[in-house]
Amino acid sequence: MSAPSKESQALAELFKTIAANFPSTPNPFLERCVYDQVHQAAAEAPGVSYENTTAAGRPCLWIRPEKASTTHVMLFMHGGGFSFGSPNGHRKMSAHLAKACNTLALSVDYRLAPEHPYPAAIDDCVNAYKWLLEQGFQPENIVVAGDSCGGGLSASVPLTARKQNLPLPGAVVSLSPSYDLTNDLESMKTNNDVDVLQSEAFVAMLGDRFTAGDQALKKEPIVSPLYADLAGLPPHWISCGGYDMLLDSGKKFAEKAKAAGVEVVLEIHPGQQHVMEFMAGKAPEADESIRKIGEWVGGKIGS
Amino acid sequence: MSAPSKESQALAELFKTIAANFPSTPNPFLERCVYDQVHQAAAEAPGVSYENTTAAGRPCLWIRPEKASTTHVMLFMHGGGFSFGSPNGHRKMSAHLAKACNTLALSVDYRLAPEHPYPAAIDDCVNAYKWLLEQGFQPENIVVAGDSCGGGLSASVPLTARKQNLPLPGAVVSLSPSYDLTNDLESMKTNNDVDVLQSEAFVAMLGDRFTAGDQALKKEPIVSPLYADLAGLPPHWISCGGYDMLLDSGKKFAEKAKAAGVEVVLEIHPGQQHVMEFMAGKAPEADESIRKIGEWVGGKIGS
Repeated sequence: MSAPSKESQALAELFKTIAANFPSTPNPFLERCVYDQVHQAAAEAPGVSYENTTAAGRPCLWIRPEKASTTHVMLFMHGGGFSFGSPNGHRKMSAHLAKACNTLALSVDYRLAPEHPYPAAIDDCVNAYKWLLEQGFQPENIVVAGDSCGGGLSASVPLTARKQNLPLPGAVVSLSPSYDLTNDLESMKTNNDVDVLQSEAFVAMLGDRFTAGDQALKKEPIVSPLYADLAGLPPHWISCGGYDMLLDSGKKFAEKAKAAGVEVVLEIHPGQQHVMEFMAGKAPEADESIRKIGEWVGGKIGS
Repeated sequence: MSAPSKESQALAELFKTIAANFPSTPNPFLERCVYDQVHQAAAEAPGVSYENTTAAGRPCLWIRPEKASTTHVMLFMHGGGFSFGSPNGHRKMSAHLAKACNTLALSVDYRLAPEHPYPAAIDDCVNAYKWLLEQGFQPENIVVAGDSCGGGLSASVPLTARKQNLPLPGAVVSLSPSYDLTNDLESMKTNNDVDVLQSEAFVAMLGDRFTAGDQALKKEPIVSPLYADLAGLPPHWISCGGYDMLLDSGKKFAEKAKAAGVEVVLEIHPGQQHVMEFMAGKAPEADESIRKIGEWVGGKIGS
């Protein structure tokens, strides 16, 4: 393992600032203001333009790399524990991903907890997927992608599609995914001291918000895809930070998916924080991760 | 006067939320997080891409409308009372402006108070102007633009250029400008009840931060261009909201500039808040203001 680059360490510093300024009492507006500063981690992706749209009744952001295939699309779902994050805060990172994959991207401004707990976020993302199909995108030309809780959604969407007898997307990209809202993960303990953004109490609070305190719901396969039957899911690329408290979520899901016959690439980035790809355009590790994702997605969906 | 559109009223609602969540004790990071939410007012400007750069040692944002003239450029300076605001928070609004003017734009991430009081912001913006000249842009092809304190800077920059025997830009666009840090303005009283963002105490506090409490500095022409000799300045377009507490700043400057022989267009938007152009792409009044600005700038600098 080579030491993490100096540039990549800037994410830890930004996360520390965000954590230190996070409201100590619940205030969704302020929490969202503070968390949106994750945008600072990434550089702009040159040659990408943006357009607001409405997809299936929800505001969404079209991300258009200038030379991207117009027949291939990424459905992007931002992270933020179902309570914060936005297409705007994740704009630059998702633009780098779309550019590397040579696709358009539709970033969903799904409804957030606590105002809108389960199933709002899942419904909105499934509906956005259906909307893409209705626009004429072939399912095999769609890559579903997300980070953190958006990584969880990147499994919830195809699982729901399968249940509804819809065609499945061609590939899934999942960054530092949260696949298990019970957080029954060894890495919650072992990475407690090195993950500078998250804490057990914090992620538990976010899970409680999303499930409106319903503990049984946290074991439902649609909410925590680690408990789902994963057979038949599309090929998955799963990227995790070695210092991420959610690391074992990605590892356990990868094992279970492989055992169910799903093609899975699991990339663990030593010494890196949660969603190290936030550093897109600024840190070599993030750029290399995104470059490899783009190459892999291109091979899977032909973009 | 026709009643302000329903869409334009969304700015007042956003400002109320921002004001209600503004930290009650000084905290520059949190203040900047909250104020950056002004971005919500605007829609994306389709067909515009972005690129980070460094100009004269400061981070800047290149804003590139896809069909814009590459020989004409806008130097854009965001508002936020010299203490907050950013090229990112103002990105969409400044992109609409650049697109309407058919120019590239360089949005300056100048240093902020209280960490960096006078003359930091002015120095950074003047240096960015010089950098554009060094890149080969002809001065007559440059439009200098800004909102609020950035409107003040849009006068400070040519005033400094004149003093340093540099060539002057071809035109100036100033939105809800702050030209007088003493705030000796009737509109501070008369618009007190209708301006939902600002208060006398708030703008005084911001002026104190920028001047580090030096009251005499607030009457220096470079800090408060209302007290400057305005003869020889480039043509000015000044846009003000009728409900803006800073309204008289624009009015008084326009009168004084005209008396000094400067070509000035003063547009007052009845019933509109501070920087009504934040609603670019969403409210008809903002779109109409920006359209007229673009037409006027095109006539002045040939873009």
